[in-house]
Amino acid sequence: MKHLLSTSDLSREDAIRILDTAEQMAATQEREIRKLPTLRGKTVVNLFFEDSTRTRISFEAAAKRLSADVINFSAKGSSVSKGESLKDTALTLQAMGADAVVIRHWASGAAERLAGSGWMHGAVLNAGDGTHQHPTQALLDAYTMRKHLIGAAEGPGAHVETATGNDLAGLTIGLVGDVLHSRVARSNVALLNTLGAKVVLISPPTLVPVGIETWPVDVVHGLDAALDKYDLDAIMMLRVQRERMSGGGNSFFPSPQEYTRLFGLDGDRMRRLPDHAIVMHPGPMNRGLEITAEAADSPRSVIVEQVSNGVAVRMASLYLLLAGEEGGA
Amino acid sequence: MKHLLSTSDLSREDAIRILDTAEQMAATQEREIRKLPTLRGKTVVNLFFEDSTRTRISFEAAAKRLSADVINFSAKGSSVSKGESLKDTALTLQAMGADAVVIRHWASGAAERLAGSGWMHGAVLNAGDGTHQHPTQALLDAYTMRKHLIGAAEGPGAHVETATGNDLAGLTIGLVGDVLHSRVARSNVALLNTLGAKVVLISPPTLVPVGIETWPVDVVHGLDAALDKYDLDAIMMLRVQRERMSGGGNSFFPSPQEYTRLFGLDGDRMRRLPDHAIVMHPGPMNRGLEITAEAADSPRSVIVEQVSNGVAVRMASLYLLLAGEEGGA
Amino acid sequence: MKHLLSTSDLSREDAIRILDTAEQMAATQEREIRKLPTLRGKTVVNLFFEDSTRTRISFEAAAKRLSADVINFSAKGSSVSKGESLKDTALTLQAMGADAVVIRHWASGAAERLAGSGWMHGAVLNAGDGTHQHPTQALLDAYTMRKHLIGAAEGPGAHVETATGNDLAGLTIGLVGDVLHSRVARSNVALLNTLGAKVVLISPPTLVPVGIETWPVDVVHGLDAALDKYDLDAIMMLRVQRERMSGGGNSFFPSPQEYTRLFGLDGDRMRRLPDHAIVMHPGPMNRGLEITAEAADSPRSVIVEQVSNGVAVRMASLYLLLAGEEGGA
Repeated sequence: MKHLLSTSDLSREDAIRILDTAEQMAATQEREIRKLPTLRGKTVVNLFFEDSTRTRISFEAAAKRLSADVINFSAKGSSVSKGESLKDTALTLQAMGADAVVIRHWASGAAERLAGSGWMHGAVLNAGDGTHQHPTQALLDAYTMRKHLIGAAEGPGAHVETATGNDLAGLTIGLVGDVLHSRVARSNVALLNTLGAKVVLISPPTLVPVGIETWPVDVVHGLDAALDKYDLDAIMMLRVQRERMSGGGNSFFPSPQEYTRLFGLDGDRMRRLPDHAIVMHPGPMNRGLEITAEAADSPRSVIVEQVSNGVAVRMASLYLLLAGEEGGA
Repeated sequence: MKHLLSTSDLSREDAIRILDTAEQMAATQEREIRKLPTLRGKTVVNLFFEDSTRTRISFEAAAKRLSADVINFSAKGSSVSKGESLKDTALTLQAMGADAVVIRHWASGAAERLAGSGWMHGAVLNAGDGTHQHPTQALLDAYTMRKHLIGAAEGPGAHVETATGNDLAGLTIGLVGDVLHSRVARSNVALLNTLGAKVVLISPPTLVPVGIETWPVDVVHGLDAALDKYDLDAIMMLRVQRERMSGGGNSFFPSPQEYTRLFGLDGDRMRRLPDHAIVMHPGPMNRGLEITAEAADSPRSVIVEQVSNGVAVRMASLYLLLAGEEGGA
Repeated sequence: MKHLLSTSDLSREDAIRILDTAEQMAATQEREIRKLPTLRGKTVVNLFFEDSTRTRISFEAAAKRLSADVINFSAKGSSVSKGESLKDTALTLQAMGADAVVIRHWASGAAERLAGSGWMHGAVLNAGDGTHQHPTQALLDAYTMRKHLIGAAEGPGAHVETATGNDLAGLTIGLVGDVLHSRVARSNVALLNTLGAKVVLISPPTLVPVGIETWPVDVVHGLDAALDKYDLDAIMMLRVQRERMSGGGNSFFPSPQEYTRLFGLDGDRMRRLPDHAIVMHPGPMNRGLEITAEAADSPRSVIVEQVSNGVAVRMASLYLLLAGEEGGA
């Protein structure tokens, strides 16, 4: 593995290796001194063309715990805004000795362009490109599901002794909301499929991509109908982009109230899930819109834990891309 | 001590312990290698909802000198501006493994909310919240006063052999300017009171808070009157917020000239202070408004030294909150 | 050497010492672990009054490879914008223990003001001040020329055994474009002169400074004429500032097309250079304006390498200024 661009590129073995490595990384974070010397002297550049403080600081924390030097490069107000091409930015970062570039870009395909061009020798990690992919988000989601549902006391994976080494076979995962504009959804669908889970998309007809019938998923146009029909092991509430809702003819939702009524997760709907099921959200949440406080803060919510798992998954990704060969991993 | 939120929370013993620890920290900064390994592997997040470069880099320098990893989180343009609640921000930082969060917020009470909510296990350090508190500023001020006035060759504390271990009993401190809007003033009043100093507020009637008569202070409405009446050991010039002065019916001052005439510190007024008295300002100064260049740059000005002492006090605070138990301090 | 403010201040010996040290620094960057402990415990502040991500991250990478702590201080939105003087900013950074301040400022002379004022004990490195100087850019350019043209297999310096210890005597360097507004041009002219190279400025009459006849350079008002007249060993294309071109009576160029026709470097013009000649650009390029993709990406372009050399030259500068005495260098 040289880059981490899309969950579609990951084989089952790649994906499991990342999840297993993330388990080891998570274990190191329980120690008194959490810092590992692994990436000492390596330089990780966070190249962000879009603001995303959460993702940036998660990668930054991950890289620093591995002793890498981190340089933050917000493309706003940089020479990029003076008309510099992605190519020249890439050549510059390469020349400065970037061992890895974590890129967030508003254009779908930007990370692949950066990696596939030969402009850089370093590793490229996609931290979200347009509506396309956000692979570390899907990996942290899969990590969280595996930890709670495989090798656990109850649920579909209870027969397995330990999560380590396993995929997500047998699980049914519901993704609720705006699939059309969501790189989180696209990344999850591909990865969950690779790891053997069944995916149910629960979405208004206006927010489902054209060609959805070719995706390896079931589609249901209402949350109540989905809860009737499936025993979901995990339900993932996608973030509503408020800017897509308001406005005249361009809006995809009639109103926030309508969305909440048909697709919001509240306590009542949550209690219709199987007892072992977990509630997920990629954050930041719109409390009261796609999820109520009762659901977000309930014991079966693993939303905060997803954030921790994000650091572990990003440590694992950086480790495997930058130190993997030497470490024999 | 788990958090550092307000000088009102500090007992005399707490405060003296911070000042004594800051003395030790300051001593380490005289060495060839100033970096201490104390907080290696700890993560300090600077969570700033308001710009304040000076305070941010002072905390950043302090944390780095103790070998902590520092992550800067400017809430502008972050998911916070997309509507994320302080709660979810806190849960996120906690989940990412923040051992301490240094918070600057425009809302009074934000730091207490963050600390008191159970959202975080890490330490919270208030770096200024609204018009409420800015405790490390008051601590660095007290540190500076103690260093110059207690255990010194002359002045009210000349009988004491060393500053270490002592409070500020016997000192009279003048705070000049906009007390109403000043968290620096509020923090100083509480701490100086705890440490046994007498406080004189020197302020226009429009810039004194309602209920001032319950504060443990004297109030004088003119700098000349105060200089006549008191032998001040230190005089602290508060920053004039220019935006409060201009404008029509909302302004608190008639004009800058008027303010300078009644409350500005110039060379003549400075010479009316006792010989041992020191001149202080939290910075950044409006030279020519609340203080003249002659006063700001005179030998009795300790304004620049306050900045250095700020790093030492913040090192001490981070040390006591993050490593205190192990160190037995 | 206490500061690095202008290439005009550098003696031939100073300049060669920096280039030789940069060679050693570049060599360390080929190792598995690139990080050197040299500046451990030192604090380098990047004080940027203008955005310049490339320059900032080059200095940041250089300082971190030497194990210094780096604090980024963007003056936008800081107390500077609340009216703080450069003096008070300097005193603040000094008091916080800045061992070096890398300053980028829109005003010509700002770096000298910072260094010459006695406000700071630390070293000041000029990272570009107005239209005045950008000394590390000229040093990385000279480093790049020396590496390729002195002690190389062919070209004017082929008789020399190694670049180390040598100047640029015998070389002819062309600088093409907007000399009037370019600190890069000014820095290069002074340094190239000190190092014994001949400089040819190739520029429209409107973009040449008043008094150019006193500069130690030849001036030619067209690229074709220059290629006819000189055997250039290196040609450096200056960046066109688009904002100076558009607009009515204030514009310095008739049109981009006209500029490209008279001063742009394309493949044909490049092939009229001697075989050993190199193509340079300080970046970021306006591809298609002052340089075509064919020229920018040709084997004789060293534009990307200039960026790498920038890190080495900045490591050398920081090393010599901050650790020079102890190291005996």
